[in-house]
Amino acid sequence: MTGRIVVIGGLAAGPAAAAKAKRTSPKAEVVLFEAGEHISYGICEIPYFIGGMVDKPSDLLVFTPSEFERKRGVKVRILHRAEKIHPAARVVEVRDFQNGRVDEIPYDRLILATGSRPRKLGLDGESARNVFTIKSFEDAKALRKFVETEHPKKAVIIGGGYIGMEMAESLSARGIDVTITHRWKQPMWGLEKSTREAVARELVANAVAFVPESTVQRLVTRNDGSVSAVETENSTLPADLVVICTGVEPNTEMARDAGIRLGEERGILTDQRQGTSIDGIYAAGDCCEVRNLVNNRLMYCPLATIAARQGRVAGHNAAGGASVFKGALRAIAVKVFSLEIARVGLSKAEAKESGFDPVITEIEADSRVPLFPGNERINIQLVVDRTSRRILGANVFGRDGVILRANTLSLAVQRRMTTDELVDSDFMYSPPFSPLWDPLLIAGHQFRKSSDHEKSHRH
Amino acid sequence: MTGRIVVIGGLAAGPAAAAKAKRTSPKAEVVLFEAGEHISYGICEIPYFIGGMVDKPSDLLVFTPSEFERKRGVKVRILHRAEKIHPAARVVEVRDFQNGRVDEIPYDRLILATGSRPRKLGLDGESARNVFTIKSFEDAKALRKFVETEHPKKAVIIGGGYIGMEMAESLSARGIDVTITHRWKQPMWGLEKSTREAVARELVANAVAFVPESTVQRLVTRNDGSVSAVETENSTLPADLVVICTGVEPNTEMARDAGIRLGEERGILTDQRQGTSIDGIYAAGDCCEVRNLVNNRLMYCPLATIAARQGRVAGHNAAGGASVFKGALRAIAVKVFSLEIARVGLSKAEAKESGFDPVITEIEADSRVPLFPGNERINIQLVVDRTSRRILGANVFGRDGVILRANTLSLAVQRRMTTDELVDSDFMYSPPFSPLWDPLLIAGHQFRKSSDHEKSHRH
Repeated sequence: MTGRIVVIGGLAAGPAAAAKAKRTSPKAEVVLFEAGEHISYGICEIPYFIGGMVDKPSDLLVFTPSEFERKRGVKVRILHRAEKIHPAARVVEVRDFQNGRVDEIPYDRLILATGSRPRKLGLDGESARNVFTIKSFEDAKALRKFVETEHPKKAVIIGGGYIGMEMAESLSARGIDVTITHRWKQPMWGLEKSTREAVARELVANAVAFVPESTVQRLVTRNDGSVSAVETENSTLPADLVVICTGVEPNTEMARDAGIRLGEERGILTDQRQGTSIDGIYAAGDCCEVRNLVNNRLMYCPLATIAARQGRVAGHNAAGGASVFKGALRAIAVKVFSLEIARVGLSKAEAKESGFDPVITEIEADSRVPLFPGNERINIQLVVDRTSRRILGANVFGRDGVILRANTLSLAVQRRMTTDELVDSDFMYSPPFSPLWDPLLIAGHQFRKSSDHEKSHRH
Repeated sequence: MTGRIVVIGGLAAGPAAAAKAKRTSPKAEVVLFEAGEHISYGICEIPYFIGGMVDKPSDLLVFTPSEFERKRGVKVRILHRAEKIHPAARVVEVRDFQNGRVDEIPYDRLILATGSRPRKLGLDGESARNVFTIKSFEDAKALRKFVETEHPKKAVIIGGGYIGMEMAESLSARGIDVTITHRWKQPMWGLEKSTREAVARELVANAVAFVPESTVQRLVTRNDGSVSAVETENSTLPADLVVICTGVEPNTEMARDAGIRLGEERGILTDQRQGTSIDGIYAAGDCCEVRNLVNNRLMYCPLATIAARQGRVAGHNAAGGASVFKGALRAIAVKVFSLEIARVGLSKAEAKESGFDPVITEIEADSRVPLFPGNERINIQLVVDRTSRRILGANVFGRDGVILRANTLSLAVQRRMTTDELVDSDFMYSPPFSPLWDPLLIAGHQFRKSSDHEKSHRH
């Protein structure tokens, strides 16, 4: 195609879509609008930037706007916010923050990559100067500057999910006392029990306080407006610094107002080509809902990996190509101090709720041949459908070889493999790296043993 | 079943078979005969024992004979060599080395796990006291003792394959000057060109001399019978120590004499239940040929992983169970100094020879997010069938995250995935461990790009 492709949003899905569209259709004009000052930065690296493991702000940037323009042939308009779509006229209203003007930009194809925003607590004090969220380059720089200039002694992290864990490590690395307040009994809702317990132990071992089963009632403020403490039902937690890590929600108001269909989680609904309910408009990334490949249900799963892949597909199709994005597995890895954690597929609870008859098979094994440097115990929990023996999901944790083994399990879940097929796999054996029976094989065999045992007890 | 199951061979497949047979049929009598003094030891750890990374000889032993008897309920007869099978009578002749007596042992089921032996050069001097092979616990102890008491300064390794590489590292770690003499231009036949070049560079970087395209003509001996040099067509290599690493061949003479069918590589032919051509006799491990799951041809592939899995299957079936071993992929990992190398599936040459139309797609990428500790470049070469786009095999090398990524590719090859399916995979993204686009995804995309490029150039 030869017309104009407009992309809204410059973080992950947007640049991927814009670059792919331009590559697919070099004669098309591709314009990317971004409300902030930066595009294409590593949002998942932000906790490490706060902690100081990533040094310079520029290390977070994959591309500056001008580099992206030069290397990808895409026009980039930063500090431009899209505010309204007129689908019938194929026009989008865009505000230029530098002069306040609103322009009507005609498009032939529109790609929405409007992303997500941190969930708000809805409490007074939430916008105080020592209260932060972790969602943008600007957030990152502001929080790091605060840490380096104000030297806070005590931090309270609200929310014990993935980002909360990473922030606990980063702030601890800065010598700050960290307390996490969390709604549930164990950190990291969505993981299996053993994994959550291991995370809880890791927090204790690293002197992070964890306040379970609590919701924040009030942010106590000082006269200067800054927050001095976080109040939950049963505790008051003093804080020089508060980080809100209660998850994100999709930015879809503009899409909704344009008549684009949203799902139950208020994410944009797309087909496999990332087309929305309105012709000529595509969507990708955190603003979308995603098909879960295991139970075939829609989920809201704001992950950079999914955003990047969806972005490519949207860009390709918007430019006249033919690509599909079938869905995803919720493959997530996180490091909590020295504990490596990964999950993929359905949790046992999700599997049950999806109509499966799930059991958990759990093993602990050596990650390498014992005696070899780097060997650590690794824990694998497979979520297996009792009758079909299909692997529906998995949790893996330990201190060595966790994440890449979880990738192999991701493939197994995606290919709908059974535990019997898993134990037929041919994995490498090399003493410095992996044992004769890889932990993945041991996990598969364990399901067999326990299900045989169960059968013999039924007789 | 309730009779007697006799297992011949105590290294890898034998103990796996015996233990599984006893577990399957606790009332059966299971007897394991082993000609040597030890059973169930880590043969793949031997190079590391020579190098000193594994300290005590006992660290090599998974089970002593008495432990194995106690924990697995299997009768173990060490220093007993099986010499002849009478299939019609279901009797095996076994020599007891302690008293020289030969007993006729009746069996109901027989499992052959007679393993392999180092290939001989067929040259004088081969059995000199400073010439070694690496195939048994006894070999290992003898070589290590030689190194520690005689302090050899110069070693010549004959054969530049997997074991030759591991021995080069181990002997270098002992401060010995190492020269490898090899039949081919590059080390490690069977790997792709880039991988072999990387190995050659790693040898140079670690001061190991590599003499290519040479076969050993003569072992020069001193008056005391020890070897002083290795002579090839065009060089004389002084040696205080010689290690022969020219591969192994199956121990199948007894099976052949009993009328059991062998294959082209002289390995025992079995069905998927590990049954041989004679009723009641099973075989497992290095003495067998193996079905290659990619091209469906038989191969000789003496690997501990295959031996262990086949052993289980043979033991289960011999005891009345029903298991199958469908075949294997030749999944091999090796460490050469700090270079990690893995291969799986067919090489390009094998693929071509098997009737595919293979191309190699090669990429180099970051193993983790740059700036994070541990990040290294990783090289992936996919062997892809041009038309079907099926992944037939892969080479991976680098200094981080190689072996476990190769396991994921092993699953992809086994599941007959195409590159298009590979790029649809959901892999983890976590900056400390893996980048947004995992190298596996980059490799899959690279095939797409180069094949699209090729197509557009054909137009």
